[in-house]
Amino acid sequence: MLITPGPLLAQIDTPEELRKLDKSQLVQVCQELRQFIVDNVSVYGGHFGASLGVVELTVALHYALHTPEDQIVFDVGHQAYGHKILTGRRNRFHTNRFYGGLSGFPKRKESPYDAFGVGHSSTSISAALGMSVGALHNGNTQQQHVAIIGDGALTGGMAFEAMNHAGSLKDTNLLIVLNDNCMSIDPNVGALKDYLTDITTSHTYNRVKDEIWNLLGKMSNFGRTAQEIVSKIENGLKATLLHQSNLFESLNLRYFGPVDGHDVDHLTEIFSDLKAIPGPKILHCVTVKGKGYGPAEKDQTKWHAPGKFDKITGEIFKKVYEKPQPPKYQEVFGNTLVELAEQNAKIVGVTPAMPSGSSMNIMMKAMPERAFDVGIAEQHAVTFSAGMATQGLTVFCNIYSTFMQRAYDQVVHDVCIQELPVVFCLDRAGFAGADGPTHHGAYDIAFMRCIPNMIVASPMNEQELRNLMYTAQSDRVQSGTQSITIRYPRGEGVMPDWRTPFELIEIGKGRKVQDGEEVAILTIGPIGNYVPNACQLLEKEGLTPAHYDLRFVKPLDEALLHEVFQKFDKVITVEDGCLMGGMGSAVVEFMTEHGYTAKVKRLGIPDRIVEHGEQLELHRECGFDPEGIARAVRELAVLTLV
Amino acid sequence: MLITPGPLLAQIDTPEELRKLDKSQLVQVCQELRQFIVDNVSVYGGHFGASLGVVELTVALHYALHTPEDQIVFDVGHQAYGHKILTGRRNRFHTNRFYGGLSGFPKRKESPYDAFGVGHSSTSISAALGMSVGALHNGNTQQQHVAIIGDGALTGGMAFEAMNHAGSLKDTNLLIVLNDNCMSIDPNVGALKDYLTDITTSHTYNRVKDEIWNLLGKMSNFGRTAQEIVSKIENGLKATLLHQSNLFESLNLRYFGPVDGHDVDHLTEIFSDLKAIPGPKILHCVTVKGKGYGPAEKDQTKWHAPGKFDKITGEIFKKVYEKPQPPKYQEVFGNTLVELAEQNAKIVGVTPAMPSGSSMNIMMKAMPERAFDVGIAEQHAVTFSAGMATQGLTVFCNIYSTFMQRAYDQVVHDVCIQELPVVFCLDRAGFAGADGPTHHGAYDIAFMRCIPNMIVASPMNEQELRNLMYTAQSDRVQSGTQSITIRYPRGEGVMPDWRTPFELIEIGKGRKVQDGEEVAILTIGPIGNYVPNACQLLEKEGLTPAHYDLRFVKPLDEALLHEVFQKFDKVITVEDGCLMGGMGSAVVEFMTEHGYTAKVKRLGIPDRIVEHGEQLELHRECGFDPEGIARAVRELAVLTLV
Repeated sequence: MLITPGPLLAQIDTPEELRKLDKSQLVQVCQELRQFIVDNVSVYGGHFGASLGVVELTVALHYALHTPEDQIVFDVGHQAYGHKILTGRRNRFHTNRFYGGLSGFPKRKESPYDAFGVGHSSTSISAALGMSVGALHNGNTQQQHVAIIGDGALTGGMAFEAMNHAGSLKDTNLLIVLNDNCMSIDPNVGALKDYLTDITTSHTYNRVKDEIWNLLGKMSNFGRTAQEIVSKIENGLKATLLHQSNLFESLNLRYFGPVDGHDVDHLTEIFSDLKAIPGPKILHCVTVKGKGYGPAEKDQTKWHAPGKFDKITGEIFKKVYEKPQPPKYQEVFGNTLVELAEQNAKIVGVTPAMPSGSSMNIMMKAMPERAFDVGIAEQHAVTFSAGMATQGLTVFCNIYSTFMQRAYDQVVHDVCIQELPVVFCLDRAGFAGADGPTHHGAYDIAFMRCIPNMIVASPMNEQELRNLMYTAQSDRVQSGTQSITIRYPRGEGVMPDWRTPFELIEIGKGRKVQDGEEVAILTIGPIGNYVPNACQLLEKEGLTPAHYDLRFVKPLDEALLHEVFQKFDKVITVEDGCLMGGMGSAVVEFMTEHGYTAKVKRLGIPDRIVEHGEQLELHRECGFDPEGIARAVRELAVLTLV
Repeated sequence: MLITPGPLLAQIDTPEELRKLDKSQLVQVCQELRQFIVDNVSVYGGHFGASLGVVELTVALHYALHTPEDQIVFDVGHQAYGHKILTGRRNRFHTNRFYGGLSGFPKRKESPYDAFGVGHSSTSISAALGMSVGALHNGNTQQQHVAIIGDGALTGGMAFEAMNHAGSLKDTNLLIVLNDNCMSIDPNVGALKDYLTDITTSHTYNRVKDEIWNLLGKMSNFGRTAQEIVSKIENGLKATLLHQSNLFESLNLRYFGPVDGHDVDHLTEIFSDLKAIPGPKILHCVTVKGKGYGPAEKDQTKWHAPGKFDKITGEIFKKVYEKPQPPKYQEVFGNTLVELAEQNAKIVGVTPAMPSGSSMNIMMKAMPERAFDVGIAEQHAVTFSAGMATQGLTVFCNIYSTFMQRAYDQVVHDVCIQELPVVFCLDRAGFAGADGPTHHGAYDIAFMRCIPNMIVASPMNEQELRNLMYTAQSDRVQSGTQSITIRYPRGEGVMPDWRTPFELIEIGKGRKVQDGEEVAILTIGPIGNYVPNACQLLEKEGLTPAHYDLRFVKPLDEALLHEVFQKFDKVITVEDGCLMGGMGSAVVEFMTEHGYTAKVKRLGIPDRIVEHGEQLELHRECGFDPEGIARAVRELAVLTLV
């Protein structure tokens, strides 16, 4: 079903056409653009509130600037739906986030208007600054470079690093648009948020003004003249206080605002004016996430990416099942953590701005003083966890696999070198699905297992996740010198009755899932649940491979591997992670070290960027869906080994 | 030779003894401590200027607080010599940075006074905040936690992430001591530096004051009374302007200072007073790096870690050689980059605060507008490079291997997913030497090779480094979709005549260095130069292994590997990098994939934390010095394979 655009939007295939419109028509363009987003997402799903919040910013920027020569970098990028729709992708927008369709984020390969690929937070200022410096190097002094960044993304350290650098490069045409909506996916946290509210509502300025009033009030002999002085002082101070001594001006960025981020006329004027002002600058825009769609304005976290919904009633559609369904791994994590924390007073939780995504919000609600949302700040999250661990606390630090790339140094330097037993729960491990390559948790096995003092585990199902978490907080791990990584994917598990009693798991102990003949399949994590399906396909062909769940990539279960290689000379490894340096590599390292010479076929994520799609679609593409596993068994089985 | 401490210092084995002294004696303690550091470093080498700069801070903190119950985290930690000397390690201080001796950085295993291990920059606030929260969780409301952080380290994004979080935790006893000396190893850069100078010299405040004066000056009818008003307003404004609207107060951190960081009496008072003030706070101390040693105050970069020197004359000792010596890889990098940049106008250089360490300073001097020191900001460095690459520039981004861990996500997300051909030069790859485990570049092969669109290479000598750099900037790489990592170690190469003409290298092409029999040795990088020495040891035993230099870990030279595995069934791999997932793993991945069954012995860095020492000492410890390689050949040679 193609969504019908409004009459003005229907004429806009490129920003060039937008710019042909009269300025008075922009309000209607915004309205139609907003409606088109609502119509689309309600039917096809996707991110929602963020794009509604920047409709006016997007229209105003494309109207005032000369894109694509002028370049816009959207931080994170899930707010760029309006941008995509205005830049030649309206007719394909229903394919957004589907396998083979448009990416849910700006992407250089997709359009010349997507100046920089995004997905992770806080990169836009660095990127736009680099572009700006590059343009100057090439002699393009007129080219404009804009970074649109949210107040949430601004808490990420690299945004600060970039501002510190930008403030010292006075010739660059860099414009930072601060999209201040007080939100990440969850409400934004930290001191900066308060500060932004403070300057928006001019508290600081008012405080100074009050102080002056108080002082002058005491000088009764002045009468009305005092008021005149104050008025003059006020004007003089305002610029200084609000503009020259605020945080951004501290960093040599000219600060403008705050302005209403939904006034498209005013924004268009401002963006035109700012082009004439040289040097790095920041425009502070106040916006509302979900703007224009009532339910989304009211519950902004829920409507960040609501799934399909009834656009009239605002009812979000949920599938209805006859039988109880398996929970999401996220729910198992969140509930299990609280269960454990109720028994173990040493447990605390840490999330970098993903309370609802990770389900850390369950603990934040149950025991707010023991669960910390530290903002979009993975680096800090890990070292903060290490600091707490030095005080004997048992820290569950939950970070998406892909975002753990941001805190890699801290895991090495602050946790593992120091032998602190922090528990890392890596959510969204493996293919992230519709979010695509920027969000795939593809590399974690490779980059975590090479760190000394790091245990790397992955549960095959909900019960195993619970038991790994139980084991991680037990003395078995906490009295030791090793940290532990527990990786699990986005989405549902396989056990409707998942609240099983806790059992300790021996560190480095795998298990035989299924006896079999000729070929052994070694798996790690929930991808192991494909093996029974693969075996079903193979049964009629008389093939009955054995199945082992390694459970730990590190330490490897050497006894189990000896058993495997003594019994089998045909082995398949399957992992939802990169083939280079991953679990399969660990197995062939073991094999060659111990002189075994089995034929090993490693299945996993190949050495190329895999795009977005449903997890099963991507597993199929990479050849480790049930059919792919069955195929590998067949291919090995017919081999005659010498 | 043990250095003799002064009479007061000789009595101080723990801070408890320091605290028994009268406050009036602290100036002398500082003097003796400073002298002890000068005496030691002049004879044994090590970091220098940073510790001299914090002598008073260190003495005052230990005097005013109750260490080790109160906990001090030194950011980076190369300034903690005074702290080490005062906390029970004076008599072992001559072993500092030597194999088996004291670590050059604070280290939890070494002393209960070392509250948190450090080495990389910008971690201290996160760590101390975590400790502080942990202490509160444990009911220790009196415990103090101090982070001492330089203005250079403050540019690292995670320090900002931590401040943003700290400002929202009002109950923590966190004190941040800003050690403002305007320096990293090189002079500090960026806008923040200017800001700190600005508040130190009160420009902002003065600007406002001037403005008020101007306004009031125009109201001639006020006469003297106007001055009275101004004086009152001034007092009212001062607090607000300097304290409540500065950058730190913006983040809800109470700001105190700036104060003279060399006035030990005043500092002692302040630290005592601050204990009574609850909540997160920052004390801004102005210090001089190298304080008290004239030559070090004058040339702070040179005296960051000068090596041994004549403490009387200030002459830094240089070894004198009869013959020309091979250059450092760093010099080859720096000079070659300029040579290439002179021919290729697209080339620019980026360093995160390591101009002199990496030799990027050669380009910064030769073509200042084309070489960027972005501050201690690895994340920004990489994405800024990616931004420039989108404009068609050829970016040489030089980051120490160990610090590249900080920018891992940016390499994946902003460079490789986007297919931008950025050139990463990873300095200090392999064992860093005396800096120890926090600085070893042990994991880069494993964590870089698993990223799609990334070429990973390492030169065996100076000529190869030049040719790899030449190739990296050529169309062969720049017209493609892949980024390239060139890793090389700290220190000298092997070719006194290294200025050889440039030659293109085929990507993924290794080379046979030496024909041989029975055993093949595969190496990557300069560690390959140990093989001739190993062969010398083996010659008299009749063993003549072949030697292949892979040159590329990715893509592997498959033709060469087929040749090796067809000819040899005994193979040794040698790398100055972690065994898990490293070059040797890549080779066994290839071998098993292609059905070869050679006996492979992988030599490299084992899965444990290796401490500090000279590179050769550490190679020996890990069994891949020349003797270790020879031993591995012997062991393989006697094996009878079935």
